[in-house]
Amino acid sequence: MRVLGIDCGSERTGYGVIESDGAEHRLVIAGVIRTQPKWPFEKRLLAIATELRSLIREHRPESGAVEGVFYSANVKTALKLAHVRGTALLVIAEAGMQLAEYSPLEVKTSVVGYGRAEKCQVQMMVRSLLRLTEAIESEDACDALAVAICHATHEAANRRLA
Amino acid sequence: MRVLGIDCGSERTGYGVIESDGAEHRLVIAGVIRTQPKWPFEKRLLAIATELRSLIREHRPESGAVEGVFYSANVKTALKLAHVRGTALLVIAEAGMQLAEYSPLEVKTSVVGYGRAEKCQVQMMVRSLLRLTEAIESEDACDALAVAICHATHEAANRRLA
Repeated sequence: MRVLGIDCGSERTGYGVIESDGAEHRLVIAGVIRTQPKWPFEKRLLAIATELRSLIREHRPESGAVEGVFYSANVKTALKLAHVRGTALLVIAEAGMQLAEYSPLEVKTSVVGYGRAEKCQVQMMVRSLLRLTEAIESEDACDALAVAICHATHEAANRRLA
Repeated sequence: MRVLGIDCGSERTGYGVIESDGAEHRLVIAGVIRTQPKWPFEKRLLAIATELRSLIREHRPESGAVEGVFYSANVKTALKLAHVRGTALLVIAEAGMQLAEYSPLEVKTSVVGYGRAEKCQVQMMVRSLLRLTEAIESEDACDALAVAICHATHEAANRRLA
């Protein structure tokens, strides 16, 4: 299966596409969509939607995985993030892809085997699971890959159970 | 000028298009986009985006007016609303329309002349300003028309000042 993981953010939205059978995962592409804080907010949403759509057109993932909404201490940040998330969810629905949502705890448990894992442990495990010889460019891309791996693993388990 | 006002909501998103010179306003169309709570959330965003796009295609507003994010006591509701707002902002940006945001206080002050006006006073004034003989179908459509009227009034004042 081919999964697109998205790590939403108004300045940096990480993305990662993997090909996976649930046990072995292969990196297809990963990166970061950057927008400028000085751009009007709606233009930033448009830039994120445009890049996500182009990624989906090129790499044809069947499903999109994102982290669930989290109730951050900073309400302003959480609301901004929710706008970006709304954009990502819309793009996934438009493409007719399956949407999957996981909590940070589920992602860490799935990738590291421990829900309270540190960022660096997640990064190390993502690199190891994808058999990458080099470090992943950015933390946002790595987080996107982690949620994609989490979904591939869950989805494979669900298919075996079904 | 032709203005689209949007009152975002995940179950009911009100919309209203007006034609205005800043002093006289005419109703073009108003209504509500309803989505079912049982639909997956991303499908609801898609339904809202699809209807807004079709409205814009048909009625060609130059600008879109929405209420600013408000920090509701209920964080869950506010975050849901922010997803819908992200969708509306994206659709406005995609259409190349100008986006305008107003606080509830600005809308009420502009429409009723009093920032703490009650909902029913806003409804009465919207009906009167648009010279409607009948009441407006829904509260959400009425709120959307109020923000559209607020923008038309502000925009006309800005043009006169410029």
